Amino acid sequence: MITSTSNERIKYVTSVVKNTKARRKEGVFVVEGEKMVQEIPSGILLECFVSEDFTPSAGFDPAGSLGQEPVVVSAGVFKKMSDTTTPQGILCLCRQDRLTLSDLLSQRDKGGLKLLILEGIQDPGNLGTMIRTAEGAGFDAVIADENTVDVYNPKTIRSTMGSLFRVPVITVPDLYGAVSDLKRSSVTVYAAALDAMADFREEEYGMRLAFLIGNEGNGLSAGMIDAADRTVKIPMKGKLESLNAAVAAAILMYSV
Amino acid sequence: MITSTSNERIKYVTSVVKNTKARRKEGVFVVEGEKMVQEIPSGILLECFVSEDFTPSAGFDPAGSLGQEPVVVSAGVFKKMSDTTTPQGILCLCRQDRLTLSDLLSQRDKGGLKLLILEGIQDPGNLGTMIRTAEGAGFDAVIADENTVDVYNPKTIRSTMGSLFRVPVITVPDLYGAVSDLKRSSVTVYAAALDAMADFREEEYGMRLAFLIGNEGNGLSAGMIDAADRTVKIPMKGKLESLNAAVAAAILMYSV
Repeated sequence: MITSTSNERIKYVTSVVKNTKARRKEGVFVVEGEKMVQEIPSGILLECFVSEDFTPSAGFDPAGSLGQEPVVVSAGVFKKMSDTTTPQGILCLCRQDRLTLSDLLSQRDKGGLKLLILEGIQDPGNLGTMIRTAEGAGFDAVIADENTVDVYNPKTIRSTMGSLFRVPVITVPDLYGAVSDLKRSSVTVYAAALDAMADFREEEYGMRLAFLIGNEGNGLSAGMIDAADRTVKIPMKGKLESLNAAVAAAILMYSV
Repeated sequence: MITSTSNERIKYVTSVVKNTKARRKEGVFVVEGEKMVQEIPSGILLECFVSEDFTPSAGFDPAGSLGQEPVVVSAGVFKKMSDTTTPQGILCLCRQDRLTLSDLLSQRDKGGLKLLILEGIQDPGNLGTMIRTAEGAGFDAVIADENTVDVYNPKTIRSTMGSLFRVPVITVPDLYGAVSDLKRSSVTVYAAALDAMADFREEEYGMRLAFLIGNEGNGLSAGMIDAADRTVKIPMKGKLESLNAAVAAAILMYSV
C-alpha cells in the first residue's frame, strides 16, 4: 500500500488530475468513480488506483473488469489524488485519444458527417454537457480550439457521463484551418450567431454539416462567423440576451 | 459605513444569502453584481449595499437607478455577505414574488399558456439555465416542487442571467395537486420519460401545455408520470442513459 504523497507515481497522477499542462504534455488523463471507470475502453487504460477503504459495489470486480490489479493507496493519499470532496475510492490513469481531424476526414470522406465545433468554451460543465448531448443527437465528433477548457478536465469528464469514451473530441491549434479543411471536405459549416439572418428551423441541412458554437460570454469571434458557410440564430422571446452555450448547441444538434 | 459583521442588518442579509430556510421564512432574497442589480424590477427592491471600494461602471448611478442611497459597508464585511469568491461590490435585498398557481390560472384561463414543471431538480445551475431557456422559448412560467433546489439560491439567480425577474417561478407544496389544477384548466401535461412511447417530435401540441421534467439522477417519479396526460421521450443515439435535465427541457420547450 502506498501511504506517502511524495511517492513518484502519486505525484505524477496528482499533477495530471490538477493540471491541464501536465495532461497535455503527457497525453494522459484521470477518470474517477466506479461508474465511469467501468466505461473506460480497454485500449486506453494505463493504471488503476483504489483507496484502502474502497469497497466495490456488488457485481463489480475491479481487477477482473479492468484486467489488472489496482494499486492500493491509503485513504489520505487517495483524498489528495482525487478531484472531488467526497472521493469514490477508485480512479484510473488513461491515455488520451490522439485522433486528428485529418484522420477523421480520411475515415469519413463520404456519407453523413455531423460535427460540433467549439470556440473558447470556458465552463467545464458546459463542455461536458455538449459532448454528452452530441452523443445523444448522433453527432460524430466534437472539435475544439485551444482556448476551450481542457476536455480532460475532471469536471468536464464527469459532466460527459461517459460520452467522452464514445464521442471523439479533437483539439485543434488552428480553428480557421480546421474550418477550411471541413469545407474542402464538403462539410457545410453553420455558425450560431445572435444577429444571424436565418432561423435555424428554416435551414435545409445536408448530410455533412458542422455547428460552430462560441464562448459563453462573447459568442463566436467575428472572424469565425466570416469563416462559416452560413449563420443561423435561435430566436428568443423576452429580453434575454443569449441562451446558455450548451443549451444552444443542444437545440441546434437536435434540429437535424 | 458598517464595519462589523455583528451588525444586525448584515447578519440578516448574510443569513438570507447562505440559507434557503431564512429566505423562505422571510420571503426575501439577495441579488449580486452590477448587471443583475440593474435588472431588478423597482417594486421588489428593499435595500442595497455597496462595498467601500465599489466603483460603478460608466453610466451606472446606483442611487439614481435604484431610487435609494446604498448602504456602504467595509470591504471585509462585503466579502462576508457575498456568495462569490470575487465579489463585485454591490448587492441588493429583494422581496420574493408571491404569485400562486391559482393567481396564474385565473389570469390566464383562456388562450395560450406554456409551462415548465420541475420535480426534484438538484443543481442550482440547471434550475437557473431552465428559467433562462424558458424565457427564450416564450414559456409563461416555471412551476417547481419543494424538493427542487431553491430558485432564490445565489447560484440559481446567477445562472438565470436576469430571467428570474421576467419569468414567474411558482414553488408548490403539492405537485400532484398542481398538475390536477392544470389539467382542470385545459392544460395538457406532457411528462418527459426515457421509456415513453411517443417521440416528442411527433406530438401535436395545443396552445395550453406543460412539460414535466424530473430529477437529474432519477428522472420523474412513477406517480408523476402517471399523473401526466401523455409521456414523451427525446430519442438518443449511442449508449447514453439520459440527457442533462436542462438540455432535455430546452429541446422540448423549443419544439413547440
